[in-house]
Amino acid sequence: MSDEYFPTVTKIEFKGPKSKDPLSFKHYNPDEIILGKPMREWLRFSVCFWHTFVGGGGADPFGSPTYIRDWEGDLQGMDLALRRIDVAFEFFTKLGVDYYCFHDVDVSPEGANIDESFANLDAVTDYMLEKQKETGVKLLWSTQNLFSNPRYMNGGMTNPDLQVFCYAAAQIQKIMDVNHKLQGENHVFWGGREGYQSLLNTKIKLECDHMAAMYTMVVDYGKRKGYTAQFLLEPKPREPSKHQYDYDAQTTIAFLHEYGLKDHFKLNIEPNHTTLAGHEAVHDIVVASEYGMLGSIDSNTGDTLLGWDTDNFPMDLAQTTAVMAVVLEQGGLGTGGLNFDCKVRRESVDPVDLFIGHIGAMDTYALGLRKAAKMKEHGVLKSMLTERYLSWSTHPLGAKIEKSEATLEECVEYAKSQGEPKKISGKQELFEMIRNGYIYG
Amino acid sequence: MSDEYFPTVTKIEFKGPKSKDPLSFKHYNPDEIILGKPMREWLRFSVCFWHTFVGGGGADPFGSPTYIRDWEGDLQGMDLALRRIDVAFEFFTKLGVDYYCFHDVDVSPEGANIDESFANLDAVTDYMLEKQKETGVKLLWSTQNLFSNPRYMNGGMTNPDLQVFCYAAAQIQKIMDVNHKLQGENHVFWGGREGYQSLLNTKIKLECDHMAAMYTMVVDYGKRKGYTAQFLLEPKPREPSKHQYDYDAQTTIAFLHEYGLKDHFKLNIEPNHTTLAGHEAVHDIVVASEYGMLGSIDSNTGDTLLGWDTDNFPMDLAQTTAVMAVVLEQGGLGTGGLNFDCKVRRESVDPVDLFIGHIGAMDTYALGLRKAAKMKEHGVLKSMLTERYLSWSTHPLGAKIEKSEATLEECVEYAKSQGEPKKISGKQELFEMIRNGYIYG
Amino acid sequence: MSDEYFPTVTKIEFKGPKSKDPLSFKHYNPDEIILGKPMREWLRFSVCFWHTFVGGGGADPFGSPTYIRDWEGDLQGMDLALRRIDVAFEFFTKLGVDYYCFHDVDVSPEGANIDESFANLDAVTDYMLEKQKETGVKLLWSTQNLFSNPRYMNGGMTNPDLQVFCYAAAQIQKIMDVNHKLQGENHVFWGGREGYQSLLNTKIKLECDHMAAMYTMVVDYGKRKGYTAQFLLEPKPREPSKHQYDYDAQTTIAFLHEYGLKDHFKLNIEPNHTTLAGHEAVHDIVVASEYGMLGSIDSNTGDTLLGWDTDNFPMDLAQTTAVMAVVLEQGGLGTGGLNFDCKVRRESVDPVDLFIGHIGAMDTYALGLRKAAKMKEHGVLKSMLTERYLSWSTHPLGAKIEKSEATLEECVEYAKSQGEPKKISGKQELFEMIRNGYIYG
Amino acid sequence: MSDEYFPTVTKIEFKGPKSKDPLSFKHYNPDEIILGKPMREWLRFSVCFWHTFVGGGGADPFGSPTYIRDWEGDLQGMDLALRRIDVAFEFFTKLGVDYYCFHDVDVSPEGANIDESFANLDAVTDYMLEKQKETGVKLLWSTQNLFSNPRYMNGGMTNPDLQVFCYAAAQIQKIMDVNHKLQGENHVFWGGREGYQSLLNTKIKLECDHMAAMYTMVVDYGKRKGYTAQFLLEPKPREPSKHQYDYDAQTTIAFLHEYGLKDHFKLNIEPNHTTLAGHEAVHDIVVASEYGMLGSIDSNTGDTLLGWDTDNFPMDLAQTTAVMAVVLEQGGLGTGGLNFDCKVRRESVDPVDLFIGHIGAMDTYALGLRKAAKMKEHGVLKSMLTERYLSWSTHPLGAKIEKSEATLEECVEYAKSQGEPKKISGKQELFEMIRNGYIYG
Repeated sequence: MSDEYFPTVTKIEFKGPKSKDPLSFKHYNPDEIILGKPMREWLRFSVCFWHTFVGGGGADPFGSPTYIRDWEGDLQGMDLALRRIDVAFEFFTKLGVDYYCFHDVDVSPEGANIDESFANLDAVTDYMLEKQKETGVKLLWSTQNLFSNPRYMNGGMTNPDLQVFCYAAAQIQKIMDVNHKLQGENHVFWGGREGYQSLLNTKIKLECDHMAAMYTMVVDYGKRKGYTAQFLLEPKPREPSKHQYDYDAQTTIAFLHEYGLKDHFKLNIEPNHTTLAGHEAVHDIVVASEYGMLGSIDSNTGDTLLGWDTDNFPMDLAQTTAVMAVVLEQGGLGTGGLNFDCKVRRESVDPVDLFIGHIGAMDTYALGLRKAAKMKEHGVLKSMLTERYLSWSTHPLGAKIEKSEATLEECVEYAKSQGEPKKISGKQELFEMIRNGYIYG
Repeated sequence: MSDEYFPTVTKIEFKGPKSKDPLSFKHYNPDEIILGKPMREWLRFSVCFWHTFVGGGGADPFGSPTYIRDWEGDLQGMDLALRRIDVAFEFFTKLGVDYYCFHDVDVSPEGANIDESFANLDAVTDYMLEKQKETGVKLLWSTQNLFSNPRYMNGGMTNPDLQVFCYAAAQIQKIMDVNHKLQGENHVFWGGREGYQSLLNTKIKLECDHMAAMYTMVVDYGKRKGYTAQFLLEPKPREPSKHQYDYDAQTTIAFLHEYGLKDHFKLNIEPNHTTLAGHEAVHDIVVASEYGMLGSIDSNTGDTLLGWDTDNFPMDLAQTTAVMAVVLEQGGLGTGGLNFDCKVRRESVDPVDLFIGHIGAMDTYALGLRKAAKMKEHGVLKSMLTERYLSWSTHPLGAKIEKSEATLEECVEYAKSQGEPKKISGKQELFEMIRNGYIYG
Repeated sequence: MSDEYFPTVTKIEFKGPKSKDPLSFKHYNPDEIILGKPMREWLRFSVCFWHTFVGGGGADPFGSPTYIRDWEGDLQGMDLALRRIDVAFEFFTKLGVDYYCFHDVDVSPEGANIDESFANLDAVTDYMLEKQKETGVKLLWSTQNLFSNPRYMNGGMTNPDLQVFCYAAAQIQKIMDVNHKLQGENHVFWGGREGYQSLLNTKIKLECDHMAAMYTMVVDYGKRKGYTAQFLLEPKPREPSKHQYDYDAQTTIAFLHEYGLKDHFKLNIEPNHTTLAGHEAVHDIVVASEYGMLGSIDSNTGDTLLGWDTDNFPMDLAQTTAVMAVVLEQGGLGTGGLNFDCKVRRESVDPVDLFIGHIGAMDTYALGLRKAAKMKEHGVLKSMLTERYLSWSTHPLGAKIEKSEATLEECVEYAKSQGEPKKISGKQELFEMIRNGYIYG
Repeated sequence: MSDEYFPTVTKIEFKGPKSKDPLSFKHYNPDEIILGKPMREWLRFSVCFWHTFVGGGGADPFGSPTYIRDWEGDLQGMDLALRRIDVAFEFFTKLGVDYYCFHDVDVSPEGANIDESFANLDAVTDYMLEKQKETGVKLLWSTQNLFSNPRYMNGGMTNPDLQVFCYAAAQIQKIMDVNHKLQGENHVFWGGREGYQSLLNTKIKLECDHMAAMYTMVVDYGKRKGYTAQFLLEPKPREPSKHQYDYDAQTTIAFLHEYGLKDHFKLNIEPNHTTLAGHEAVHDIVVASEYGMLGSIDSNTGDTLLGWDTDNFPMDLAQTTAVMAVVLEQGGLGTGGLNFDCKVRRESVDPVDLFIGHIGAMDTYALGLRKAAKMKEHGVLKSMLTERYLSWSTHPLGAKIEKSEATLEECVEYAKSQGEPKKISGKQELFEMIRNGYIYG
């Protein structure tokens, strides 16, 4: 067919675990019911526009772009932008994902001034709306790019120059309007340049005050306009900044508390950012979930030995199982999803590699869902965990302490009455053995 | 003199920068006035009891103790404890520090049960009070050790076993009482085992709820008893736990916000913990100070290439200058101080090495104070910094935004009226050159 | 039975993948034939004496020992040493491993002087020889501990003090003799203190010259005595030293080349050390194997986010499969084996946790062997790899270059004749997808 | 003057330590004699072409170029290339450095095929030769870029495709010829893509065999042509590759030994690469120097908390002093130099920032030279070091061991005759205190 950009690829089908066809799902069977919901609803997979259709073409700090996409031909400007939309929706549809995500500048070219840029964005997103209707693919989230253009080199919302701050405001307002038009379910803020390169030339608190002021205006604007997309902050410790203010989940929560914004935001957690912050991959997902702040997940993986964000496709079943266990525990991701903020390696230059990467990752997540669901059904690990904290629920003093009704003196009295506590094994190896039985069994 | 434990060392004197005597200060001249205050008041140096007089005797995970201190002879139990007090106060006095710090179990042996342990602690601290009066040396802070005894292997305040939690309460109550007796100026909580080894066997939020409940009781107890010592939390990201809940300054602040405890605590920041959390050494000091939460400093240094806490004596002038610049900026440390949570290397087995380490560190800090004071007096770096943010204070919209009185629309309008912002150099190299002129000039 | 130390544990049996019994093997079936050899011969499992029966009792830098082993009672000195031998051989036998490893000081107490220490070692190892004969359990390797005793705080073979160097020589000679008596198949050197804490007080090359001189004498001594155990060096980058001279596989190979020792040593690789050196877990195993230097493996795992050696039991199937793929490729480990240089977590205080940890790890390795064998049989990944380098074997210039018979000019001529090379996809995602099919399929 | 590109900057002069002029040297006084040689000869400063005149214009993985250099105007192709040569030589001359370095592709545009590319290179380098003669500035080293062009995405010398290998050969041969024409004193090989992204699709040894074959042809070609530039390998552990074969100094030395190339190469060490490999900044410089392999230094600095190569200007006096101490100890760098492989921060967009960065760094090195020279003259630290190893030179057994004439038995006998060795303090704190006295005194 003349208007196909992946002519050798047909819709990816579920063919079961024995399939040897790389272009098939072995584990992801979208409509199969797991714990009462179809897999597609638990997983809510999303493809990201930037790495998949724009990216730097595989450029890295030491090398030029490596991908040359036939479909781009000699197209430029709006023509190229619209072509990419066609390619993207063909890709979403053939892959069988229900959602996608984008930055403003991913989908439309910047013009000579703000008004031109916005006009371009309007035109392209009108076309995206058409394609959404045509295909049924929905917008998981939109976001603004406040880091690539040189004007943002010293920050967007935290720029020392008021004028740049206002420029950022303009971009934010515009993409919020676009999000509303496209019925996006969430809107993300990631502050790659909201941080510092050197403490010497930086006023941290002043910059955070400004960032908070922006968010306050954003919340106000959304309310006034009746917008419903969930706001999400995405933590990352560094890169491109030496230090980013949204370092990790808890730092970001501290910020929201400090400035009275906590009720208006949730978090979009990316495990690769979590490991860069020095935590285990699922740590921030667990923490955010337990404190009711887990909004969505950027479902990629990194390399714990490299000091930068590699955005690999997730291929580690232990990790995807751990993520899905949290998602099951909180009853799903709500309006959030699992967005593949992943890129094929720059050496993976064949367009089909885009499918291979996503299929491999979707299968690893789908299998993780199956494993996590079985764990949950059996409840063995959960029982062991409950057992471990049993003294708190079985002795009345436990409840009293938890309700902040006890005094230090009461605790001391109890301690003195009991003598030396027993040493109770933490049983980590047993937990691991049993978990492995589920994952690899 | 028969009762001296460092007979070859006399009181360390200031001999000026040309002195070649290792047992003299080249830069620390306690009563010299710098920016209106004596050096000793800016610096408020403190020696820690644990590394200096107890420690593991230089043991590490691969080696037995290396230090054999003659003064310990064959002493044991209370005899040994009291001997160490004599040694310590001789050391404090000869070194010329005004403060010291200790954990309960550093100074007194545990008994067969709580009551015996507390009786020991009472007796030793009575003697310490005498020595304080005799020498004028004061208690910067006390703290409880809830990590060394095997009963705390699964945590103290966050232990899954209610009984251990209560045992911790008993230790805390007791050391608070002791602190009050000794007129300690602060009281520190460091939660080395308040964290997890494995997410599999841990309920993070439940454990943090319990920790918060303890602090709530602690605050209440202190209020009821009229205690005035400032409570301090000391962040550390890990070690001994794989993950510690008080990961860094901002994580700890998030915790305090979450549980309504923020007004009752400040932070005790240790730069070596800060680098382990992935931040530049002074980052947490700066952040804590700017948000009004910097209470005290553990003035050691670490090794950014080693993944554990080395507690080296600070010998890097650039770092001590940066710390003192923050201290000067906030007008001093209040009731806090610069506590040397440092240990001589395990190969530095001579008792005189204890003096060398401290003198070297005190001089590096004293010189850092001199450099920072000169920077502050000249004001060049500060002017450059003010200049950088000038647009915010010179345009009325800046103030409006900062007061949360502006709308997104006003910002957008301003942005559109101005066109593309100028690209303003961040001048990091110039800031560094000028700073170097002060530090090395 | 009165002389059992693990009375509740009987011989661990293979019960297949559906078994829920923690004290059974789900995957390790010792006599099952895989690719022509019984599993036990491919795996050659070994238990280490130090972590399992001595260790620091679970002590860490912030905590006292946590394990209290009933079997130790109040025993001391030689009585305790001999008791541990009984416990160990009961453990080896019940677990069903064929090998064990030890340091001299693990098994026998140091005496008042060298001669007493050696007499103790003779007595205990005589008893170990009896137990070996009785049980059929064999010695995989012995080693000398040149790092725990304070005399070695500044190094053993690299100590600035000649006297300490000679003391190390004495320990080495003795344990070589003991190894010979016990028919050990290998002898390991791990130099935890052969490195530096500070460049300021260290002469690196002089220290390495001394270390090489020791190895030269060791090789000579072994030859003269007709000893046949394979010498192995075990790299580690740091800890306890800030920098260890045997940083990683290639650094150690450089040392062996430099001093003409390469033919007399192979390497004992520990993946946890490899990740501490900044490499992927199996990197050093692959490198050592490809250069014919892989002698044995310390089959534990670490935590890539912690900066110290955690010696966890290996529980990651992807890693064990990757290791076993290398072992299969080189046709087995020869005289080497998979030694569990692992310890239960210090919170895992129940003796049965020792079994759980080992069983979990053995099953993870056994399943890794099964997966790697299937990969090898199918040959899919290997074919893809061969295909990738095909240009070298299909064009005559390739062979000429590989035989060092080509000139730069010939290469240039070929390049000019061919024009711009094709960009060939590295297909990393496809390799990962197919590997995952084997591991998780 | 119409043909000046830095019209506001005149020749940078030495104005002494009290100068407040950022565009003056405070410490670098090129013709001042230090320990018998002019500063310029000890330091042999070099400016790199890539970061200073090309770079990515300040682009990073998250942002577009930020520097817009007026002198580039709308120039393209050869016109732009020649303009940059003019700019560069004006910069070298005004800054007062004697050397510069470049990659082939830095200075001349690639053409439609090899021949065109080489013709461009010939033309530009003919012009560079003229400028060298005119200004007296010399070529410290040249190198080939085998990593930026997409053809090298899977490696240059280690590419699985023979054709790419040969293309690399063509580039190498050409730049060797150019180097000879320009009388370059060294020629560097840095293998950013000579490594792997995934072990799954890589044959490590085969790739290293090919790399060695290339070097063998290179050495042969140089010999046949009578070329005299010193070959240098530059280690780096990773980035852009996940793992680079020339990981660090010792890994590179292992490679040279393995393939019989050790006599033909020295090393070019970059401290920022050294810290990325997990070593202290000067470790590789010390190791390379002690083994006679230190050829040249890339005198930048990095950030030990960031996992990528930041190429900052060196501003840390302790580090530059340590480097210069090694250089003094080996009597200078021979044909090597201190090349500033540094870039201004991407926010430092003013052309004058290029001067500020270099001046700050040159001063930090010049002051480091002064401090190191004083340390060497006084000899205090060296005496302390000699003292530490004295037992080896004062007892005859020491010499015997060092000459490989002793047996294990002789050492054992000596150990037994001496009893327990003394525990001798390593005195690290004293070494540090004395060093600080020199650096900050």
